[in-house]
Amino acid sequence: MKTEGGSPLNLNPEPHAASDRRRLRGGAPIQIGLLGCGTVGGGVLRLLAENSGYLAERAGVPLVVKRVVVRDLEKERVSALDRGLLSTNPAEVVDDPSIDLVVEVMGGETPARELIERAIDRGKGVVTANKLLLAAHGPALLARAAARQVDLAFEGAVGGGIPIIRTLRDAFASDWVERVTAIVNGTCNYILTRMRDTGASFDAALREAQDLGYAEKPDPSLDVDGHDAAHKLIVLAMLAFGAQVDAAQVHTSGIRTIEEADHLYADRFGYTIKHLAIGRDLGDAIELRVHPTLIPKQSVLANVSGVLNAVLLEGRAVGPSLVYGRGAGDLPTAVSVVSDVLDVARSIASGVAGMQGRGMSIKPRRVRPLSEIVSRYYLRFAVEDRPGVMGRIAGALGDAGVSIEQIVQQGPTKRSSGAAAREPAVDVVLITHDAQEGLVRSALDAVAREEFLREPVHLFRIEEP
Amino acid sequence: MKTEGGSPLNLNPEPHAASDRRRLRGGAPIQIGLLGCGTVGGGVLRLLAENSGYLAERAGVPLVVKRVVVRDLEKERVSALDRGLLSTNPAEVVDDPSIDLVVEVMGGETPARELIERAIDRGKGVVTANKLLLAAHGPALLARAAARQVDLAFEGAVGGGIPIIRTLRDAFASDWVERVTAIVNGTCNYILTRMRDTGASFDAALREAQDLGYAEKPDPSLDVDGHDAAHKLIVLAMLAFGAQVDAAQVHTSGIRTIEEADHLYADRFGYTIKHLAIGRDLGDAIELRVHPTLIPKQSVLANVSGVLNAVLLEGRAVGPSLVYGRGAGDLPTAVSVVSDVLDVARSIASGVAGMQGRGMSIKPRRVRPLSEIVSRYYLRFAVEDRPGVMGRIAGALGDAGVSIEQIVQQGPTKRSSGAAAREPAVDVVLITHDAQEGLVRSALDAVAREEFLREPVHLFRIEEP
Repeated sequence: MKTEGGSPLNLNPEPHAASDRRRLRGGAPIQIGLLGCGTVGGGVLRLLAENSGYLAERAGVPLVVKRVVVRDLEKERVSALDRGLLSTNPAEVVDDPSIDLVVEVMGGETPARELIERAIDRGKGVVTANKLLLAAHGPALLARAAARQVDLAFEGAVGGGIPIIRTLRDAFASDWVERVTAIVNGTCNYILTRMRDTGASFDAALREAQDLGYAEKPDPSLDVDGHDAAHKLIVLAMLAFGAQVDAAQVHTSGIRTIEEADHLYADRFGYTIKHLAIGRDLGDAIELRVHPTLIPKQSVLANVSGVLNAVLLEGRAVGPSLVYGRGAGDLPTAVSVVSDVLDVARSIASGVAGMQGRGMSIKPRRVRPLSEIVSRYYLRFAVEDRPGVMGRIAGALGDAGVSIEQIVQQGPTKRSSGAAAREPAVDVVLITHDAQEGLVRSALDAVAREEFLREPVHLFRIEEP
Repeated sequence: MKTEGGSPLNLNPEPHAASDRRRLRGGAPIQIGLLGCGTVGGGVLRLLAENSGYLAERAGVPLVVKRVVVRDLEKERVSALDRGLLSTNPAEVVDDPSIDLVVEVMGGETPARELIERAIDRGKGVVTANKLLLAAHGPALLARAAARQVDLAFEGAVGGGIPIIRTLRDAFASDWVERVTAIVNGTCNYILTRMRDTGASFDAALREAQDLGYAEKPDPSLDVDGHDAAHKLIVLAMLAFGAQVDAAQVHTSGIRTIEEADHLYADRFGYTIKHLAIGRDLGDAIELRVHPTLIPKQSVLANVSGVLNAVLLEGRAVGPSLVYGRGAGDLPTAVSVVSDVLDVARSIASGVAGMQGRGMSIKPRRVRPLSEIVSRYYLRFAVEDRPGVMGRIAGALGDAGVSIEQIVQQGPTKRSSGAAAREPAVDVVLITHDAQEGLVRSALDAVAREEFLREPVHLFRIEEP
């Protein structure tokens, strides 16, 4: 992670007490406190137990779970949990001087934030999978950890079992990340895959996802409206571009507006529709957006199907690099959390805690407004079937300086039953060449004033990742 | 990396001198010696120079190139190289006590092996991208490094810029790798992509690859016959399965036998032909093979095109995980080498060198013979066009206990001009259900005795990665 210019958050204090800390530790086990014991927490306990011998060898000392904080002492837990370790009091983890490492898997902002801050202030290493918290307070938490010379690790926060955080941090250490193109929400990807493969409507595919436990019931909006993906993009941008961003700066749209017809037209033009989180480093600014996107069927991202996630990085020297896998689920996320636990435990045991964040610089960066981005566009207009309409649409785009690569008219459509009673509607669908979004929007404003338009225009951006 | 049972190579000595070493070092820069300065070496020098400030921050001390050993002092070099550092004497790197870290980018087995051994013996960290050497002597070199408590890092050896080594080592630390399915030879992948997309013959696609510098001239056999992929599979198996294997144990076949017709039939059945390196951990044995393979067009590996590489790991807990990117080229490989340099330098600077290999166990494991593997098969028989032939082929397979999923007959083919003079040949092409390879081979032996067979049978295995 590199940025130009100064760094308002100092993540680079001099390590001074490391060798003392190691001498003090001797070969004592690393004592771990868990905050939360849901599905991920249960998976962490299981993996720590099953791999204890191997992890002790890798860390150089045994890893021991000392305390597990939960809300309900009576609830059923995994068999790997010794119930004697349970407590409802988080202070027994974050304030216990014998605990070296805190694993936060409770989620949410409150009280997770305060507990992590307290753990850091008391010199403990922290591992978390809390993307919401990191999206809101990541840079401040990292700076706090760096100042206190402890590690804050969060591989599980983005992309479940995908090693994207360590890839950005370590593998790209000597490269410059120019672009991030990511499928990071399994719910959206499942719904879009089913719509494409079975011709299902959004509503039908959502119900199916809910029945399978891939989408929240009754309110799936955190996923299908793109907010979850936006949180993950903020965390990725922090590492890839050294950017401190808040959610309001990320253009975020979800998948509710995609209709069956859009999948059919996309396919006809050689594309697949994916819900992407896109980040670009333009030098003087960055671009951050989350939205449905048409990508070529030959793209490697096009075959990332169902609940799978993938993050494609474009490095200046290394070129494209993709990591792919299960983006959610208790075990994949738990594997990432335990990998972090091993890393942090090893650093503590060898007296070099707090080194991972060294050299990081995270600061606010200008985010390019959506109107300034340049993209190709897929536009679908449901219009009255009468002569001259295609010409009026093409004309409006031409007047705005937007040139068209392909245009087709097809219909009548059966979607809009109210409209069909009047007169059959047809679809005019087109693909533009590269154009600035502001120009496209002004053309659409002109078309919106035409009486032949039956529904709001369907606009999706096109990427060639 | 985990294996069951004992470990004949002891990679786990107690670290004892680490804090002493760190105290001795103080904040002194890490002195680097380069062995070799070809395209990768030049890229390494460039990245070290361009990122020197950032790398020093991350490592905690400056990284300084002290000596660059080359064969020809007069040859043109990258501008990042201070020619005063050049030497033709490798002893000035491996025997110089002030050099902390040796980067071996000369390639080949001799003298690289001896120089790396000497560097290890003198307590230096080593970074290499030498897959040939690692395939032949990886376990012994790792054991030597562990015994001397120094790091031996080799991210650049497999998959160029793809962070596959650290993914296996770190991200999968608490998981068990059950399967590795990899596209690791860019030359083969380029040729197969061109054959599929343009209908070119193997010879034409090979010439094109040679003209573009993607295949060696005049002898491309290291790549197209699969040996390069086998070397990489051996390195992957060392980390993924803790297996010490030699090249003779890896079934290796190349892509010369694939004809245009095979791409057409594969496509018709819903598959793409890829040259894959496949490893499986079956518990009591492992499976290691390199060969052309039919995979479903919907597989994420199917869209890994051109010179790109990808490694798909199947973890018991984490599920599928894929890393993908440029598998070769000076800069991608150099990025991996420099990431390793940073890792190793950081360990030296903080007095914890030699910890990365801790907990690794590498030992000989039983490799399942090819006759025992179970797979689905694509079989193409070029036969005389006469009644009963399809029945005879199906009968031979049935007699051997191999059941057929699909069978088609098509022709006449135009491929075999000599045969065409006699009588038009037709193709009988079939896909089997899962079958043991030994049974398939015995069926093919029976068919080989039939006089209707015009050419040797084309056999390709089918995988569903």
